[in-house]
Amino acid sequence: MYKVYGDINSGNCYKVKLLMALLDIPHEWIVISILNGEAQTDDFKLKNPNARIPTLELTDGSCLWESNAILNYLAAGTPFLPEDALLRAKVLQWQFFEQYSHEPYIAVARFIARYLGMPDERKQEYHAKQEGGHKALAVMENQLQTSKYLVNDRYTIADISLYAYTHVADEGGFDLSKYAAISNWLERIRREPKHVTMEQFGG
Amino acid sequence: MYKVYGDINSGNCYKVKLLMALLDIPHEWIVISILNGEAQTDDFKLKNPNARIPTLELTDGSCLWESNAILNYLAAGTPFLPEDALLRAKVLQWQFFEQYSHEPYIAVARFIARYLGMPDERKQEYHAKQEGGHKALAVMENQLQTSKYLVNDRYTIADISLYAYTHVADEGGFDLSKYAAISNWLERIRREPKHVTMEQFGG
Repeated sequence: MYKVYGDINSGNCYKVKLLMALLDIPHEWIVISILNGEAQTDDFKLKNPNARIPTLELTDGSCLWESNAILNYLAAGTPFLPEDALLRAKVLQWQFFEQYSHEPYIAVARFIARYLGMPDERKQEYHAKQEGGHKALAVMENQLQTSKYLVNDRYTIADISLYAYTHVADEGGFDLSKYAAISNWLERIRREPKHVTMEQFGG
Repeated sequence: MYKVYGDINSGNCYKVKLLMALLDIPHEWIVISILNGEAQTDDFKLKNPNARIPTLELTDGSCLWESNAILNYLAAGTPFLPEDALLRAKVLQWQFFEQYSHEPYIAVARFIARYLGMPDERKQEYHAKQEGGHKALAVMENQLQTSKYLVNDRYTIADISLYAYTHVADEGGFDLSKYAAISNWLERIRREPKHVTMEQFGG
């Protein structure tokens, strides 16, 4: 059985939990707390030398890390990852966008506000994250005005990757009410059969 | 024929140029200057709403963006991208690592030093990038001590993605001489048939 090392408060970990629920993939979840620095131990670095979660451990003991790489691995051969080379590349396009242009703004602002309790020394950073976050949301809104999901009209792992931190963007100070297409897309994802929320998951 | 919109000074653009050279893929290169903000125009945003380069335009006029998504698209079915699902996911693991844990430190430090000429107002940021850059290099060194390339012993697009900014990391203040395995890997890549340098490319 797969082992997943993850923190219930992390959107990157929730991505893996959500896909595993949608695909009924049995797994053992091993809690690694970010706030307690549990990914920074020498033991954990044997699993992921980059000391980050989520990390997936296969039955042979080898490990795969980076949330979006894990999604691609688990979704291969399922409806959540198209076979067509260009559609597959479009899925990746949105996942790389997520890690470079979305997560470093929206997830970090949320982390500062919700998990660190907005300490004075990080308030400036929090405010500096707002512009980049809204830029990323505008790019998503632009796409979702022309297609039901990020890649055509089909729910893929690109949507899972961007749903993870977008649906809790308000916790980072982002008001989503002015993004109508994003709001409809969030609702569409929530209504999918077998959907699990972050709260169900515990976060 | 493919059109590539790119800047000769960008490692992200060089990734695409290098793979296209290795695979003999005919293409037209259209110069978009980062320093002149040419990706920020309304016209360019029709090609890439995220206003970034490289952007690949297909023969039907549709566009694909994010350097690593472009590499995956162009490398599909070639020796640079394994067919096996786990190896393919390992390639992605290193590419997501590159965009999240490597590029934001090493490429940004290089940009501040080499292209902006180290202005006083960004010196603090430049110095703050050093720790994260060395952390990323240590993760690569750890892997390259046990395999010739990042994913087993085969040259893949994972190597191209990380070669792009690692081989010019010295321009961002990173001394590579203490990373023996990385240094050998850089030399191995440089010696590949059909390799093109950033200088040949013009950057």
